[in-house]
Amino acid sequence: MDASFKDTQVPRKLSYIMDNPTSSNREILLFSMKEEVGALARALKIFEDNKVNLLHIESRSSKRSIGDYEFIVEIDNVTGEPNVTKAIEGLREQSAYFQIISRDHKDEGTIPWFPGRIQDLDRFANQILSYGSELDSDHPGFTDTVYRARRKEFADIAFHYKYGQPIPRVEYTPEEVETWGTIYRQLTKLYPTHACREFNHNFPLLIENCGYKEDNIPQLQDISEFLHDSTGFTLRPVAGLLSSRDFLAGLAFRVFHSTQYIRHGSCPLYTPEPDICHELLGHVPLFADPEFAQFSQEIGLASLGAPDDFIERLATCYWFTVEYGMCRQGGELKAYGAGLLSSFGELEYCLTDKPEIRPFEPSKTALQKYPITQYQPVYYVAESFEDAKEKMIAYAKTIPRPFSVRYNPYTLNVEILNSKPQLENLLKNINWEITRITDALCKMR
Amino acid sequence: MDASFKDTQVPRKLSYIMDNPTSSNREILLFSMKEEVGALARALKIFEDNKVNLLHIESRSSKRSIGDYEFIVEIDNVTGEPNVTKAIEGLREQSAYFQIISRDHKDEGTIPWFPGRIQDLDRFANQILSYGSELDSDHPGFTDTVYRARRKEFADIAFHYKYGQPIPRVEYTPEEVETWGTIYRQLTKLYPTHACREFNHNFPLLIENCGYKEDNIPQLQDISEFLHDSTGFTLRPVAGLLSSRDFLAGLAFRVFHSTQYIRHGSCPLYTPEPDICHELLGHVPLFADPEFAQFSQEIGLASLGAPDDFIERLATCYWFTVEYGMCRQGGELKAYGAGLLSSFGELEYCLTDKPEIRPFEPSKTALQKYPITQYQPVYYVAESFEDAKEKMIAYAKTIPRPFSVRYNPYTLNVEILNSKPQLENLLKNINWEITRITDALCKMR
Amino acid sequence: MDASFKDTQVPRKLSYIMDNPTSSNREILLFSMKEEVGALARALKIFEDNKVNLLHIESRSSKRSIGDYEFIVEIDNVTGEPNVTKAIEGLREQSAYFQIISRDHKDEGTIPWFPGRIQDLDRFANQILSYGSELDSDHPGFTDTVYRARRKEFADIAFHYKYGQPIPRVEYTPEEVETWGTIYRQLTKLYPTHACREFNHNFPLLIENCGYKEDNIPQLQDISEFLHDSTGFTLRPVAGLLSSRDFLAGLAFRVFHSTQYIRHGSCPLYTPEPDICHELLGHVPLFADPEFAQFSQEIGLASLGAPDDFIERLATCYWFTVEYGMCRQGGELKAYGAGLLSSFGELEYCLTDKPEIRPFEPSKTALQKYPITQYQPVYYVAESFEDAKEKMIAYAKTIPRPFSVRYNPYTLNVEILNSKPQLENLLKNINWEITRITDALCKMR
Amino acid sequence: MDASFKDTQVPRKLSYIMDNPTSSNREILLFSMKEEVGALARALKIFEDNKVNLLHIESRSSKRSIGDYEFIVEIDNVTGEPNVTKAIEGLREQSAYFQIISRDHKDEGTIPWFPGRIQDLDRFANQILSYGSELDSDHPGFTDTVYRARRKEFADIAFHYKYGQPIPRVEYTPEEVETWGTIYRQLTKLYPTHACREFNHNFPLLIENCGYKEDNIPQLQDISEFLHDSTGFTLRPVAGLLSSRDFLAGLAFRVFHSTQYIRHGSCPLYTPEPDICHELLGHVPLFADPEFAQFSQEIGLASLGAPDDFIERLATCYWFTVEYGMCRQGGELKAYGAGLLSSFGELEYCLTDKPEIRPFEPSKTALQKYPITQYQPVYYVAESFEDAKEKMIAYAKTIPRPFSVRYNPYTLNVEILNSKPQLENLLKNINWEITRITDALCKMR
Repeated sequence: MDASFKDTQVPRKLSYIMDNPTSSNREILLFSMKEEVGALARALKIFEDNKVNLLHIESRSSKRSIGDYEFIVEIDNVTGEPNVTKAIEGLREQSAYFQIISRDHKDEGTIPWFPGRIQDLDRFANQILSYGSELDSDHPGFTDTVYRARRKEFADIAFHYKYGQPIPRVEYTPEEVETWGTIYRQLTKLYPTHACREFNHNFPLLIENCGYKEDNIPQLQDISEFLHDSTGFTLRPVAGLLSSRDFLAGLAFRVFHSTQYIRHGSCPLYTPEPDICHELLGHVPLFADPEFAQFSQEIGLASLGAPDDFIERLATCYWFTVEYGMCRQGGELKAYGAGLLSSFGELEYCLTDKPEIRPFEPSKTALQKYPITQYQPVYYVAESFEDAKEKMIAYAKTIPRPFSVRYNPYTLNVEILNSKPQLENLLKNINWEITRITDALCKMR
Repeated sequence: MDASFKDTQVPRKLSYIMDNPTSSNREILLFSMKEEVGALARALKIFEDNKVNLLHIESRSSKRSIGDYEFIVEIDNVTGEPNVTKAIEGLREQSAYFQIISRDHKDEGTIPWFPGRIQDLDRFANQILSYGSELDSDHPGFTDTVYRARRKEFADIAFHYKYGQPIPRVEYTPEEVETWGTIYRQLTKLYPTHACREFNHNFPLLIENCGYKEDNIPQLQDISEFLHDSTGFTLRPVAGLLSSRDFLAGLAFRVFHSTQYIRHGSCPLYTPEPDICHELLGHVPLFADPEFAQFSQEIGLASLGAPDDFIERLATCYWFTVEYGMCRQGGELKAYGAGLLSSFGELEYCLTDKPEIRPFEPSKTALQKYPITQYQPVYYVAESFEDAKEKMIAYAKTIPRPFSVRYNPYTLNVEILNSKPQLENLLKNINWEITRITDALCKMR
Repeated sequence: MDASFKDTQVPRKLSYIMDNPTSSNREILLFSMKEEVGALARALKIFEDNKVNLLHIESRSSKRSIGDYEFIVEIDNVTGEPNVTKAIEGLREQSAYFQIISRDHKDEGTIPWFPGRIQDLDRFANQILSYGSELDSDHPGFTDTVYRARRKEFADIAFHYKYGQPIPRVEYTPEEVETWGTIYRQLTKLYPTHACREFNHNFPLLIENCGYKEDNIPQLQDISEFLHDSTGFTLRPVAGLLSSRDFLAGLAFRVFHSTQYIRHGSCPLYTPEPDICHELLGHVPLFADPEFAQFSQEIGLASLGAPDDFIERLATCYWFTVEYGMCRQGGELKAYGAGLLSSFGELEYCLTDKPEIRPFEPSKTALQKYPITQYQPVYYVAESFEDAKEKMIAYAKTIPRPFSVRYNPYTLNVEILNSKPQLENLLKNINWEITRITDALCKMR
Repeated sequence: MDASFKDTQVPRKLSYIMDNPTSSNREILLFSMKEEVGALARALKIFEDNKVNLLHIESRSSKRSIGDYEFIVEIDNVTGEPNVTKAIEGLREQSAYFQIISRDHKDEGTIPWFPGRIQDLDRFANQILSYGSELDSDHPGFTDTVYRARRKEFADIAFHYKYGQPIPRVEYTPEEVETWGTIYRQLTKLYPTHACREFNHNFPLLIENCGYKEDNIPQLQDISEFLHDSTGFTLRPVAGLLSSRDFLAGLAFRVFHSTQYIRHGSCPLYTPEPDICHELLGHVPLFADPEFAQFSQEIGLASLGAPDDFIERLATCYWFTVEYGMCRQGGELKAYGAGLLSSFGELEYCLTDKPEIRPFEPSKTALQKYPITQYQPVYYVAESFEDAKEKMIAYAKTIPRPFSVRYNPYTLNVEILNSKPQLENLLKNINWEITRITDALCKMR
């Protein structure tokens, strides 16, 4: 690899993170009625009387107020329409609790919308910032119509994907496989010395179980199943750029939005955007590590309902950990960020003495500016994933948000924690867990 | 409803529980090699040298021994074959730990096979004790060829069902819907006074979200999704009778094996076996209750790898709780068992002074004999689901089993807990949970 | 031992439990002022303006409201005095929280007084129901003036005892030592077969460390130090009968009120009241067991501020456990109650088939009537101390009391738990404990 | 205050920390016998046969091996004596576990001696590095024979002090009170602006409860009682310099070794060594804060049995926190270290921009060199006591020590944690605590 490569063919924006969330007129009302008998009927009457158009309605058992019901109503909110305001006021009066969750969260008292269930991630497809087949003029495949058509195919798969479906399998062309092979050969030479221990522990498992090899591009579905079995992480195909808010929200559910297409064959060692090589070689091996999976989810949970400026800070933390993170193991620096592990050039560079090395400290790291079109001048080093996770949790506590959230891995829901009965139940669960641990300890004698 | 009905048309065996597990020659070996370099290759060589036929092989990260790999190898064990014994001996010597998991668990030192991942439940299809379309001569539909063909259809759906697939939707005939309607009308009259609070809380949600109504038989898939969203429970169609061991193992994964066919239309208020009315009206509303869901799972977890006699005791506990349980609420007796809640006759009967009422005490209840062709002479009363759960956990500790198990709700795996690093990780998770609770408490001020 | 003895010389009331608490005009006000600047001065002014006599005043850091102060003011309350009522009203208005703690707790809204610090137990000396030297006419020592004078000496020691002082050492007379010796010889013959495992484990330690032997009556101070080193329990000399409420309150602090005198020498195997033989041979060995110590403290904590009828029920639970409890060990019945372990006659009797044996179930046991002048007709059997403790904790939750209490073993204070910051701190402590356990587990590898 | 003062009259070594532990020939053997019957007798025989002189012998219930006994034997070890070695070997063979705890811990396999019970702190009196009445030639009171005699009085009080006794009250001379008054007046002017919030919260309580005022030197006993009631901390008078190891060990028991004498009246604003002004104005207000108390204890616990180099590091951490610590509160720097809070000069100086400010990071702070005869050039800033505590706990884990320790606040013992039954018991206690918290949360609704 010649020196000129290092200067010119740098990776660029290796994650789908951007900060221009599209707005929408849909608004979600979440409420529980004070008197339960005929609660739903009364609620519906208020909307009807005010001629408010309901897009979706759902009832469920309230987690916050045991024994009550909760209603989730999605309405078409033409801002300034007096009838909507009136309906909301009418409803609020009769509610035990009432919350407006809005994508257009500029108003006081609304919480920025966030997915509450894993299937809510399906909505992101309509909120992508640019469709995956639209290439910039300096993209290596900009003038290649075959490549652009191929990109359209991949974007369409992702656009129509719904939660719960298997990710469609793709037959990659010999050219595509060759591109993969070139990258695979190069990188696997560096991994033993440059990648962190967890990466090198999981890589052979991907070879044995998911078809990782030089002459085969593994299928997202196979990897998704393997990851799920390892840590509960799954992959979702993504049709284009997501906003930072949406992308991070996926992590709260242990869902990683992954590209499925491969970079243009003309420049195998360079890509201006994430592609399947970046995802599979950079990200996947780490998501199979339980500690790293928790760390990633923690960033996601911290982002739910956070103010815009904190979303940017969390995205920056994500950049300097999941994408470009380094760690210290056995006294040596190692790479664990996907942007490093999927770039031969930067993986070599990061262990030289050229870049600056600083300890990962979320409150500071979150404010660091970074270039996306060249090698990083600064890397942040975690003492361990556990340490990084604890620091992220401590940092998350500083985010101004009037509630805490908790992921329920049984129901794949995110719950807003703000009532005593919820906390009581959680404490009882902990009791149960401790009993189980005590029993296991006793049996180990 | 006349008195004679009560004597003659009693429900019979309202769950698929039976105790003749079929045996199989497949044996599963689970091991971790002492030296990791080239571990898998060395293991495979041993099998090859001894000409042992491998049916399946899998590697994963060891949970018990951090940083090591674990191999799961399924072999065709023709008992007495010296080469298998030799291969096992050879392997055991080179292993850090080694476990034989066998359906034919008569030997010393083997653990009765149990599913380790939710997809392992797919294997039960080959182990059903009788196919769902085979009817006894006294079955109301025995001579009805149309009914038998219909039953075959349902059995085939279940037989080919695999984990992860949506449960096929069925168009029920007008006659089938009428049978459902008759039962639905009768039972819904009794629920407000006879069913427990949790049942009556969830029933309206099933009406609003899953299509429960007089003139519609709800679809298993819709219910399964609703349950998953409520408690993480899901339904699986079942093609015939499962052994107690297999049926209970499903509960460990919060999976309930459900029939999809309906009883014969000639006798709408009687069925000699579970049918969709029993499942949907009896079981489903309770599986939407978090406390009950945990209770049910606890029985399932207790059963994994338990000796045969304890499987029978747990099945008896299941019978006197999930099927025929009663509880005390606000000083009054209420029914929560599905066998009661799906039988107009027994639901009325159970609240009269005819049956005997005893407190639920697993160590005693587990030994109680019971009739399956008439109303129960004895019912066991739980103080609350929480109380019942705690008693089951305490009882489970008395089951002789050289390990503890834990369900990982992220990976949908059951983990054998028998190493310190596992316990350390669990304790760290508890720390994390407590931090979250503390934070939530702080935000609630 | 002849049969007639069993019928005539039975032990009687082997604990100081009685239910006629004396009342007092002192009332304690506990409050925190809304505005902190000059808080104490403002509070004092209100009392002064209303001419209320202050007996004691104390300020401390509020546990419930972090960053605020709490004042404890003891006043002389001549009931019906309008100025006191007025002062209280004035204070209540300016308080963030306000509580009247009263021994004369007949009014609505007052909590029955209970000691908040271990030194508050000093107050019990003024509340004894009868002075220890007053003997009933049927007492074996009633006409023995020397014995009565001796009893007065012991009562005076206890009456003047203050928390923190060493318990005065007593030189016992040769006659007293002989009485002790007679009892010691008899009982130690039965212990190996009749006493529970924990008793027999601790007895040799008392011989080796505290001077237990046939010809020596051990000193309370030595035993108190030994117990403190084992479980944190200490002994306090007591001058006479305490009310049940006061006696149980001592246990909340792991303090056992102990007699120091010995029974009349004329009837060595009979005593109508607890004496040093009962305390040292019956109670002490069990208080050296950590599980039993926690169990005893739990009864004490449950009693603090409980309504009168529940005090009686807890005293009954105490009677059937700490005084007359039996347990099952290795399939055999064993005695652990001090009333049994200090009475040769009843210790033999309790293992015969004459008495009735029932499982310890606090909600039922608490209501059982019992004779105090003959052998018990009914004994309650605990499965283990741990089991008994868990049942007591569950029972304690049913006591109507608008707050929870917690013993702080560092400060020897009882804290009323009713604010979120307190619970947050406790959760943080739990995290700390879990971290320590995790670390220990890690070091044990 | 003039500038010259700042340069000349600096405080010096404001804590009793020094690093030359004296050695001793006493060695403690701690063991449990394999066979329990006649265990003690067999052990004693081994010593007798080898003519080993026993200084002290004690038996107790083993915490590590439930149901067994543990023996603590103190022997006179003349190193190289073959009989001692032989006795130890003989004993080791018959022991379930065996540990040599030695002040002269140069040998392999011995653990540096540390106090296991609070009363073991009495031994420190014989290990002081220099007697408190020996003054350096540059000490302001070096030539003042009255002052030296007075110092001797104080040293004698401390030398004869035993655990459990009240600290003798001292009548201070008018001159001594005047010295106190001068310092008191000066410092109390700065506290509102320079001291941390916790200090200013507790200071008024000391005025109201412990006699803090300009014209009165408070009594150690009163303060010790107040602290005990606040956080469980107590004071112990100290006769001279303790080694770092001994001084820190006291903190593990929440015991602070305090001087009782006052500095020489000729230089009221300067003292070359800690005196009662330093202790009472600098240390005491913070030890009344629960979070700070835990932090201090944590340093102490970390020190028990640690290697010599880590003792030095912990002493350095102590220096930069308890003595010279600063913290950030509401965006401003505040002092919490006793060396600052008891020195008018340095308290003013530390908030100027002259010193360097660094974040408290134990792994780095522990290695920082510092001057003891001038103002500190570097201060370390904690984000909060909680943060400082968590960092200390994390740092303590890095200390090479083959066991964990835990303080039992009931028995005032330090327990070595290295068996599963201990951990099981701790986990059960945690469950109990969580149950109590859940109950309290439930009652708060």
